[in-house]
Amino acid sequence: MLRQGVLIGVGLGPGDPDLVTVKAARLIGASTVVAFFAKRGRVSNARTIAAGYFPAGCEEIALEYPVTTEIPFEDDAYVDALARFYEESAARLAAVLHDGRDVTLLCEGDPMLYGSFMHLFTRLKDSFEVEICAGVSGMSGCFAAARQPMTWGDDILTVMPATLPEDELVRRLRATDAAVVMKIGSNFAKLRRALHKAGVAERAVYVERGAMPGEKIMPLTQKPDDEAPYFSMVLVPGNGRRP
Amino acid sequence: MLRQGVLIGVGLGPGDPDLVTVKAARLIGASTVVAFFAKRGRVSNARTIAAGYFPAGCEEIALEYPVTTEIPFEDDAYVDALARFYEESAARLAAVLHDGRDVTLLCEGDPMLYGSFMHLFTRLKDSFEVEICAGVSGMSGCFAAARQPMTWGDDILTVMPATLPEDELVRRLRATDAAVVMKIGSNFAKLRRALHKAGVAERAVYVERGAMPGEKIMPLTQKPDDEAPYFSMVLVPGNGRRP
Repeated sequence: MLRQGVLIGVGLGPGDPDLVTVKAARLIGASTVVAFFAKRGRVSNARTIAAGYFPAGCEEIALEYPVTTEIPFEDDAYVDALARFYEESAARLAAVLHDGRDVTLLCEGDPMLYGSFMHLFTRLKDSFEVEICAGVSGMSGCFAAARQPMTWGDDILTVMPATLPEDELVRRLRATDAAVVMKIGSNFAKLRRALHKAGVAERAVYVERGAMPGEKIMPLTQKPDDEAPYFSMVLVPGNGRRP
Repeated sequence: MLRQGVLIGVGLGPGDPDLVTVKAARLIGASTVVAFFAKRGRVSNARTIAAGYFPAGCEEIALEYPVTTEIPFEDDAYVDALARFYEESAARLAAVLHDGRDVTLLCEGDPMLYGSFMHLFTRLKDSFEVEICAGVSGMSGCFAAARQPMTWGDDILTVMPATLPEDELVRRLRATDAAVVMKIGSNFAKLRRALHKAGVAERAVYVERGAMPGEKIMPLTQKPDDEAPYFSMVLVPGNGRRP
């Protein structure tokens, strides 16, 4: 019987190709088929991070998201389109794996933390052997880029999206020692109000494109406007016990 | 005027030397002085992870913790001893840096997330140039080792220590989508009760020495006893929206 291929999920880290792990670099370099997500008509971020490790002549599979603009996740049409996209993408990889060839699937950041990889992993894991290589998470990249110690001792860390209602942001910011707020985009003004109400604005740090080209880092109180890309973060460092 | 040395904080990842980043491997390989923490009389975990990248003839500085047993952090004598240790360690590195030599300070996991590195960083950052290299966090290593997707879409993730009182563990486990509970040790029986009361025990995963030799991973409900080392974790994956 033909040996089936192995799906190899490889975390690429926050964006700097040097923050790829030694293991990931080796796995990518030994690939015959490399797959990656991309927004339709755009250069794939994942491919850009990893391309320097591609072996000559490897086959590339670009999995192109059906939508490029920010549609509310609650929109049924969006959910349907994404579900179809993940089904089709899983089927494309399954065909290669059935053929006995391994597929290296690239994932920005940590593949198990808010990663697109997980949508294909859950669809393929019961049919194929899967290997997963951890990566530096986007937020870990931001901590280092901002030179910001985040959690000390028994600090509690909460990672939350800025899409939450303002009152809930305030409540959760008050109830934690340290926080990472993601997915800011059009939610910046609301988030800024919540940080002030929660009494943590003075120690909050705004990070845009952390560990990527065009990186911008500043204390929240020095951010002059309410413009923020979707992939920006606010870090609220813990004040934990520190000898 | 003599150029001062640069303090280079390097995250090593969760334990597997292959999960060191390409950048960290290069920084370590270019070091003339490498410093690392160790428990007194024990082999340093950080040194073990990184030793394969050490250049021939580099100077090694072992920073040995004054205590090896688990004393409650609340104990004043413990806090005093640690504070003295960090002061002395910072002074040792400062002497080398003053001498114009760079020091590479190794840190397990992500240097900014519960890292010993932060204690020396805060003491040296205003006097010396500091460079920080992000690493794969211990928890990211556990997610991959457990093959466990953790957070989806707008999931909220809470990282908390098992040292919290049982009621607070229950309350926080109920109030989050996904959780990582760390520092288990003698708190396992309490944590297990809290996971059941919060209704998340069925999907919780126990990870001991994730991404390290001797790794043990099992569903929480299959863990037969209440024994757990200090550096074990329980993962509660999010159930977030997934197309």
